[in-house]
Amino acid sequence: MKNTFGQNVSFTLFGESHGEEIGVVIDGLAPGIKVDTDHIRHELSRRRPSGRISTSRSEADEFRIVSGLFCGRTTGTPLCILIPNTNTKSCDYSKLAVTPRPGHADYSAECKYHGFQDYRGGGHFSGRLTAPLVAAGAIAKTALAEKGIYIGTHINVLAGKGDRCFDNENLKKDIDLLSRSSFPVLDEHCGEEMRAEAEKAALEGDSVGGILETVVIGTPAGVGEPWFDTVESVLSHALFSIPAVKGVEFGDGFALTDMRGSEANDAFTTDGRGVFTKTNHNGGINGGITNGMPILFRLAIKPTPSIFKEQDTVNLSEMKNTKLSIEGRHDPTIVHRAAPVVDAVTALVLCDLLAGRFGTDYLK
Amino acid sequence: MKNTFGQNVSFTLFGESHGEEIGVVIDGLAPGIKVDTDHIRHELSRRRPSGRISTSRSEADEFRIVSGLFCGRTTGTPLCILIPNTNTKSCDYSKLAVTPRPGHADYSAECKYHGFQDYRGGGHFSGRLTAPLVAAGAIAKTALAEKGIYIGTHINVLAGKGDRCFDNENLKKDIDLLSRSSFPVLDEHCGEEMRAEAEKAALEGDSVGGILETVVIGTPAGVGEPWFDTVESVLSHALFSIPAVKGVEFGDGFALTDMRGSEANDAFTTDGRGVFTKTNHNGGINGGITNGMPILFRLAIKPTPSIFKEQDTVNLSEMKNTKLSIEGRHDPTIVHRAAPVVDAVTALVLCDLLAGRFGTDYLK
Amino acid sequence: MKNTFGQNVSFTLFGESHGEEIGVVIDGLAPGIKVDTDHIRHELSRRRPSGRISTSRSEADEFRIVSGLFCGRTTGTPLCILIPNTNTKSCDYSKLAVTPRPGHADYSAECKYHGFQDYRGGGHFSGRLTAPLVAAGAIAKTALAEKGIYIGTHINVLAGKGDRCFDNENLKKDIDLLSRSSFPVLDEHCGEEMRAEAEKAALEGDSVGGILETVVIGTPAGVGEPWFDTVESVLSHALFSIPAVKGVEFGDGFALTDMRGSEANDAFTTDGRGVFTKTNHNGGINGGITNGMPILFRLAIKPTPSIFKEQDTVNLSEMKNTKLSIEGRHDPTIVHRAAPVVDAVTALVLCDLLAGRFGTDYLK
Amino acid sequence: MKNTFGQNVSFTLFGESHGEEIGVVIDGLAPGIKVDTDHIRHELSRRRPSGRISTSRSEADEFRIVSGLFCGRTTGTPLCILIPNTNTKSCDYSKLAVTPRPGHADYSAECKYHGFQDYRGGGHFSGRLTAPLVAAGAIAKTALAEKGIYIGTHINVLAGKGDRCFDNENLKKDIDLLSRSSFPVLDEHCGEEMRAEAEKAALEGDSVGGILETVVIGTPAGVGEPWFDTVESVLSHALFSIPAVKGVEFGDGFALTDMRGSEANDAFTTDGRGVFTKTNHNGGINGGITNGMPILFRLAIKPTPSIFKEQDTVNLSEMKNTKLSIEGRHDPTIVHRAAPVVDAVTALVLCDLLAGRFGTDYLK
Repeated sequence: MKNTFGQNVSFTLFGESHGEEIGVVIDGLAPGIKVDTDHIRHELSRRRPSGRISTSRSEADEFRIVSGLFCGRTTGTPLCILIPNTNTKSCDYSKLAVTPRPGHADYSAECKYHGFQDYRGGGHFSGRLTAPLVAAGAIAKTALAEKGIYIGTHINVLAGKGDRCFDNENLKKDIDLLSRSSFPVLDEHCGEEMRAEAEKAALEGDSVGGILETVVIGTPAGVGEPWFDTVESVLSHALFSIPAVKGVEFGDGFALTDMRGSEANDAFTTDGRGVFTKTNHNGGINGGITNGMPILFRLAIKPTPSIFKEQDTVNLSEMKNTKLSIEGRHDPTIVHRAAPVVDAVTALVLCDLLAGRFGTDYLK
Repeated sequence: MKNTFGQNVSFTLFGESHGEEIGVVIDGLAPGIKVDTDHIRHELSRRRPSGRISTSRSEADEFRIVSGLFCGRTTGTPLCILIPNTNTKSCDYSKLAVTPRPGHADYSAECKYHGFQDYRGGGHFSGRLTAPLVAAGAIAKTALAEKGIYIGTHINVLAGKGDRCFDNENLKKDIDLLSRSSFPVLDEHCGEEMRAEAEKAALEGDSVGGILETVVIGTPAGVGEPWFDTVESVLSHALFSIPAVKGVEFGDGFALTDMRGSEANDAFTTDGRGVFTKTNHNGGINGGITNGMPILFRLAIKPTPSIFKEQDTVNLSEMKNTKLSIEGRHDPTIVHRAAPVVDAVTALVLCDLLAGRFGTDYLK
Repeated sequence: MKNTFGQNVSFTLFGESHGEEIGVVIDGLAPGIKVDTDHIRHELSRRRPSGRISTSRSEADEFRIVSGLFCGRTTGTPLCILIPNTNTKSCDYSKLAVTPRPGHADYSAECKYHGFQDYRGGGHFSGRLTAPLVAAGAIAKTALAEKGIYIGTHINVLAGKGDRCFDNENLKKDIDLLSRSSFPVLDEHCGEEMRAEAEKAALEGDSVGGILETVVIGTPAGVGEPWFDTVESVLSHALFSIPAVKGVEFGDGFALTDMRGSEANDAFTTDGRGVFTKTNHNGGINGGITNGMPILFRLAIKPTPSIFKEQDTVNLSEMKNTKLSIEGRHDPTIVHRAAPVVDAVTALVLCDLLAGRFGTDYLK
Repeated sequence: MKNTFGQNVSFTLFGESHGEEIGVVIDGLAPGIKVDTDHIRHELSRRRPSGRISTSRSEADEFRIVSGLFCGRTTGTPLCILIPNTNTKSCDYSKLAVTPRPGHADYSAECKYHGFQDYRGGGHFSGRLTAPLVAAGAIAKTALAEKGIYIGTHINVLAGKGDRCFDNENLKKDIDLLSRSSFPVLDEHCGEEMRAEAEKAALEGDSVGGILETVVIGTPAGVGEPWFDTVESVLSHALFSIPAVKGVEFGDGFALTDMRGSEANDAFTTDGRGVFTKTNHNGGINGGITNGMPILFRLAIKPTPSIFKEQDTVNLSEMKNTKLSIEGRHDPTIVHRAAPVVDAVTALVLCDLLAGRFGTDYLK
């Protein structure tokens, strides 16, 4: 399996940046899930470029659900979402076929596809393909919310500027805040600093990266497997396929390596009914299996590889060193736009894990 | 699929810490790969506890290959490696069934298996199960070496003490050095500092964590998929199932988030025959696909959760808060012992990716 | 995985009989395969209803390839084929939601999807979904033909009337003959008898079934697995999902059960260069693995369940016995229309098996 | 995946006829299933050769469950069953490496494994590997029986001699009868005729085949998928990997092709509470999904390929035609011994389908 992910709930992604349509097929969703097209539209709007720190390419993202939907609800059979590409400028990219862009997939794709790949605008590797994922994730998020499971992602750091931490006493409130935001920070003042930094880089023809932090509340304990399909394994598998993600850590992640066991262990406690942990350094996962506490992870998003500064590359047809100046439309950062994608992918993966654990009808 | 990983080359893990035998079945390996039992024994010895910073439980790790081996070579059909558990002390653990150990899988396993799991010594969650993985990986490493692909892992940081970096000009030499070491550091002086720090924690009844860094040289360009089965995705999936791994980053990983695109992009260059990158911030992977440069990643290993200090937990049968003092034999750190496991898992995953890309016979 | 099949080359099917679009995503095809839209159109025309023994519903089958195609060749990334539903008559079927049609999936779908399924025209269960499969299979057939692998299916028996056998001395000629035929028989006189029998049933408001026989020539020896993924296993898995297939046999199949070993065994012989079998009772497969001889199998296609005769059923909302008369447009037989579907599914499965055995680029 | 089958409950098979141990790993079974070693022993005894129509090789089949079992019940983690090979006679088979036996996998295995396969006694292709499958299936059968699901297989036809049909009014009684029988027929008189026929063939150095018929009662309606993972698809996939199976048909199977739709359709009827079909020509499956009626299928088992009569074959090292006389110990028929294997495989597949539909804990 390649462009398909998931065992009980699976999703298949297709399309290219400048192709006719991009889309996703979601299979295994419970029948009877309400499909709220306004909510899908809202989620897509969160991913869409806007403002000075985004590409000027603007896509209407007019999606069509052409199967798996009947009378406003999922049928339980494959649901296909299509998004046409309306605003394509193929000519901008013609030179890239022989001069691969540093930091992009151009060269490795050439090695894999021997020149037959659609190189225009990154082709199948384009971040544009995250749009159908976001649309699919919107349906998954609705289903999860019905079960009391909520997902939120904020920009932890952008270009070195940090956001405030999640309020562990009121995660639902923070998640609600993020769900309405097109630039998902918990402290709007921090957001302004981040954008200022990104704009500065943009003016210099450069780009910036950052860290996204995601929290999931409401997941029942006892989901995941001890080996190979740990919750960390399955989530990281899906998350690492989001373009520009180069690191994933759960709970305190790399910071755990500086702690002692007595600090890192999350002590159990009970109120007589439920079992909780006093801290959550392990991000809600012990031994690969959820323990009922919030799932917490952070993603490293590298700076957008498309920059306007001249770069060194190779002319592959002549096998000679050369210079490359990338034209076209580019984002100086995609960190904020990646947040709804992370939400979506997380939602789809959770639907898969829950369906595997509790059966097809669990999310009905 | 749960305790099985891989599509074209797959491995299935079974057993419990105090069960009769633990083992692994590897399927899809090319026929004709030389199986060097001395090499397997050597790799197992690298994982075995030794010295003052390891558990005093000592297992002979006498493995048997009971299928898939004929006249000293792989047959191409499933190869099963068995390791008997000889030195088990079941009584040490009896109290853990109702008082879950913080930082361990005891509680989440209880939620998943409803009390039927083998709780003795961590059961199926035990690090003991990495022994058959190491044995399987030894065979995979031999096959890869025949193709000029080599893997090495060193302790980047232990308890805050760092090792020197890989020598990018001579990675093969560093890999050879690590393959002979039972405490895999590149600078033995650094190793002494690390061990001293770990012993200090041990004396205080505590434990420490660290960071492992792995390099793979010789992987051909063009391996991996754009979506869902990116090389990062597949590797992280397998790596996150190694006990105690809480973070995975490729190339410069989280450090990339502080760079600008102009710094993070790896410029291409050619000598007229091959294509290379001048830097390797992306760890040999662009767009999820290998570019022919060394694959580089780092793993966050949390401090061993088994500590002797008294900890808070819950008595699950009475649903009351209580205290827990863990007895038995424990490692104050497992970072160094995890290194050969990481090598092994990486080798198995690479065999899978290469078989999918180039066919069953590629590693013959 | 549900509506997705295949490991190295996979296909995902979506859509409903009366939905907006139906389609398929094929992933894992080698890059650079020529996509001949005329050939796809030709294959679709072979599946399309025609004449007195087919439904009067006529679909133009105007397909669009919206991804995975660049400059007339496959890119190696997912290729999506869409076929819009233009000629739908939803009103004909409204009563079926509560009165399941005997022999159809209406009742079992109700048990699975709890009333959320799109029941119109059979919904996702409709034979209409074989159209995208045929389109996908046309591409696979082209790729296989480049390697000298050819597939042909004839109506072995329809309504009790038989065709002549394959000419084992000239299979390629028979395959070519069938590829041009809209009613695939080897002896046109036999075809006339079959059609006469089907028309007779149609006049009586009834339907007929038959047996399809498929031959594949040119498959290399050594493909398939000893256990679970035998060639018979993988092919039958895919073939049994074609609507109305209720039996699959390889080689002489059920007739082998009447033979003795000395008759059923296919003796090996050589001309000094290749190894062949003198007979082919085992249909080109020994121990689940191809032996280089033609692959041969037969499928039992049950009579079309949609008949005009009044039938007994249950009113599910009242839980009372009732009578059902099906209106609408129906095929008195679908045996001949299933032939190109069988060819297509066989071609896709072979591409998967070959890619797994010889690598991604094998069919390039 | 190759020698592993199943998505939610999976089983991995390993070993060779003359290797050290053969075994199976079952993963995904619910925790808490009672493991009755006497029942496993009983099922193994049904598969064991006995009497004049079986090989004189006798294996004690002393199995060990080395993981996944704790206090007499499944843990929910992988359960590994090992069976040592005690009675091997390697020398009998040495000549087969270069002179492939007609009807066997010797030649196709050579093409796949390039001479590295363990050819002794059929190696990994040997029917001997069905022993661990039977042991695994015994556990699955126990779990299913707790849910009221029962499986039985009888010899429908052996060497042209038939058994009586299942008594549809009392299937449970027939199933109980078969579960106690080492030669599973419903009418013992018919069984005598069958054995006489097989002995006659044995005396002539030849072998015979037959048809097995299986019934499953108690499966809930609504299990299976419309495309690719239909119940027929998944069952046939697993069943076709049992050695010597060359045909699978569900319900009336190939006989349906001679019926008209009005005969083949199973009319629905209700008693006011449940929904049933008046007939069961479709074998309990409509549109790939169970309808709650008994699942019914038949398997074509070819005559055992190992016969004593001299046969034509090729000397592969010299590429010359030659004669082969097989010595050693062989079954003149394996039809009766395949019956418990079919039961076992069916039970394992049903556990997988049910776990996928209703969740991990369904069979607890």
